[in-house]
Amino acid sequence: MSDLSQSVIPRGFRFGATKAGLKQSGRTDFALIVADAPASAAAAFTGNRVKAAPLLVDAEHLRATGGKVRVVAINAGNANCAGGQPGIDAALATCKAAAETFGCKPEEVFPSSTGVIGVPLPAEKLIAVLPALAKSIGSESDHFQQVAEAIITTDTVEKTAFARFTVTTPEIDGAGEIRQEVRIAAVCKGSGMIHPQLVPHATMLVYILTDAAIEPAALDGYLRDAIDVSFNRISVDGDTSTNDTVLLLASGASGAAIGSNNPEFASTLTHICTSLARQIVADGEGVSHVVELQIHGAATNADALRVAKAIAHSPLVKTAWAGCDPNWGRLMAAIGYSGAQIDPQAIDISFGELPICRNGGRAAEYDEAAAHGYIQQPEFSISIHLHQGEGHCKFWTTDLTHEYIRINADYTT
Amino acid sequence: MSDLSQSVIPRGFRFGATKAGLKQSGRTDFALIVADAPASAAAAFTGNRVKAAPLLVDAEHLRATGGKVRVVAINAGNANCAGGQPGIDAALATCKAAAETFGCKPEEVFPSSTGVIGVPLPAEKLIAVLPALAKSIGSESDHFQQVAEAIITTDTVEKTAFARFTVTTPEIDGAGEIRQEVRIAAVCKGSGMIHPQLVPHATMLVYILTDAAIEPAALDGYLRDAIDVSFNRISVDGDTSTNDTVLLLASGASGAAIGSNNPEFASTLTHICTSLARQIVADGEGVSHVVELQIHGAATNADALRVAKAIAHSPLVKTAWAGCDPNWGRLMAAIGYSGAQIDPQAIDISFGELPICRNGGRAAEYDEAAAHGYIQQPEFSISIHLHQGEGHCKFWTTDLTHEYIRINADYTT
Repeated sequence: MSDLSQSVIPRGFRFGATKAGLKQSGRTDFALIVADAPASAAAAFTGNRVKAAPLLVDAEHLRATGGKVRVVAINAGNANCAGGQPGIDAALATCKAAAETFGCKPEEVFPSSTGVIGVPLPAEKLIAVLPALAKSIGSESDHFQQVAEAIITTDTVEKTAFARFTVTTPEIDGAGEIRQEVRIAAVCKGSGMIHPQLVPHATMLVYILTDAAIEPAALDGYLRDAIDVSFNRISVDGDTSTNDTVLLLASGASGAAIGSNNPEFASTLTHICTSLARQIVADGEGVSHVVELQIHGAATNADALRVAKAIAHSPLVKTAWAGCDPNWGRLMAAIGYSGAQIDPQAIDISFGELPICRNGGRAAEYDEAAAHGYIQQPEFSISIHLHQGEGHCKFWTTDLTHEYIRINADYTT
Repeated sequence: MSDLSQSVIPRGFRFGATKAGLKQSGRTDFALIVADAPASAAAAFTGNRVKAAPLLVDAEHLRATGGKVRVVAINAGNANCAGGQPGIDAALATCKAAAETFGCKPEEVFPSSTGVIGVPLPAEKLIAVLPALAKSIGSESDHFQQVAEAIITTDTVEKTAFARFTVTTPEIDGAGEIRQEVRIAAVCKGSGMIHPQLVPHATMLVYILTDAAIEPAALDGYLRDAIDVSFNRISVDGDTSTNDTVLLLASGASGAAIGSNNPEFASTLTHICTSLARQIVADGEGVSHVVELQIHGAATNADALRVAKAIAHSPLVKTAWAGCDPNWGRLMAAIGYSGAQIDPQAIDISFGELPICRNGGRAAEYDEAAAHGYIQQPEFSISIHLHQGEGHCKFWTTDLTHEYIRINADYTT
């Protein structure tokens, strides 16, 4: 369990998890996050056109409530996707039961699912354990940690991030300066089918909680900015899931009001999201190397992202990394088919500080043994300069290993 | 060696191969195809923006000659890519030496390379063996087969295709009906870095020869039509190479003149190209399953191709196939992020004749054991109907196996 003190957990929320019998492993698989009062909510969902049933229900519920959530109900072990109307009905039945349990509207319930696609969700199993789970929820770190454990699937570790900062309101009318602590706590899961395109069986689910007081519209702006440089900048396998969800809830319980343009909240949220995104990549299925791609000098930021994604999705590049093979020709091929504007004679590649390619050809200082040694590290960076403009990005990805094949090729459906 | 009779080989060409010392294995790695007189030529090159030096030279040479080729000089073991001006110079030096040997213009020489990217090509090794190779070339099947052997890299088998048809010219002025046999012979290599986008270290090289008499412009039209439904419809790993080349040469030695709209030549050429494309997929790196994707009911043909490519490039789908896992949810996810226009509730999926998914959900007749058994076959087909329009395509791809990882992750650069 966590060794964090209780004071890291945002006020205004309670947490818990139990076993509903969905995971074949028999581990906890049903978690609740319950706000004491309707919390401001902002959410982002997968860009996959096949969206799991809970995402469709969530979007409708947020519209109906104007961005308010009381209960987040998360199951692992079943994605509730590609189930037609029965899948929608299963999500709605869970919402109805949770609403009755906690005395709120069904529209204030936000269901989430992760697991196998195409298998009907047995909502009755969730509903059966709901009363006992409701009695066990609490506001301490251990309760929060229960959520982190229950929502994982092929993940090998729980993933959380925490931050605090202080909002100082200047003295007005002799009332004295007001100092209020804002807390942010976040929990997520994700290991395979990881290439979130937030606007798709293992999947990324992210829940970020704060006790700041923020209106839903402002919350949405903060969330989109933070996602754009974190969750939308990672890929394990290039497979965009049907279930990816990021939910940001603000309870207001700290008493600290945050407007739509607070740099400290924005930077803290971005820090939290980047931390979680990197944790997901580091725990990617079968990963033995985590690679930070730094693309510079692209014609546009979009072109920089094209280059990063082509590299991150190239089986030949990823297998070379798995073998600690400095074969930079595979990088050149991926840059070439990325669709980005390039001049093949103006491409520079470095591994960390090691010059690899200059002006599109092998660098004079190229040292294969040094390059091989550098990429033997479990985490390393590759820098590519296109000399076409000012476009740039950072992107985090992984190698492609025997273990990834083992995890995903086993006949286990 | 081949058991084909000599009469399958188009007239007007000679062939041969030798060891220039480029392959670490010590096998033959330098091949020549020599036309007795300048042959009409049509070529297609990779859409990768990083193009190997020989492709740049080839394009310039075809422009300079108006589409005429005397000598094709092919080396394996070195891609001559990402080598800057020295790479261009190496290709040009090879052309110059071949032109002197065969008494033609340097512009009538068509160089090709396949192998590692980023390592300087030692043209002097090719030039040194050229005189002896020139003396050994011949027009028989065995000579043709030497080319097939010399150009392979990670391929496990040689890949060739042959066809013949008869052109009948009706009686004119009592001169009697004329019947002329047209022969087409083709040879190619390709196993990894296979996702040709002809418009990228192992790479696809295809040489198709005919003794029909066809003008270069007409030849180009035939080639583009045939490529569009064959080489541009396959993917092993989604990596588009820097070196992909398809060259079609017509010697005219049969005496049979073919205009720009001959259905038999078109269909025979398409048959040859499709045969080679399927041979490449079947010999893909580490492949244990070859999959034919049949996409129906897409809004457009382009949408059908988007769906096929998303599936063909999904590591999760490809590893499921490797494990004979009928997990069709991964297909749904790939369809959803393909970018094609879809209605998730209107998607049907069949494995061969087995109903798997109907209206976006598990088919009532779904039989997991039967589905598992079906995809245990080394070759199988998956049919997907989107019910959006009349767009369709066929596409051939492979699974993703431990052996692919072994081939490409070994530190062997």
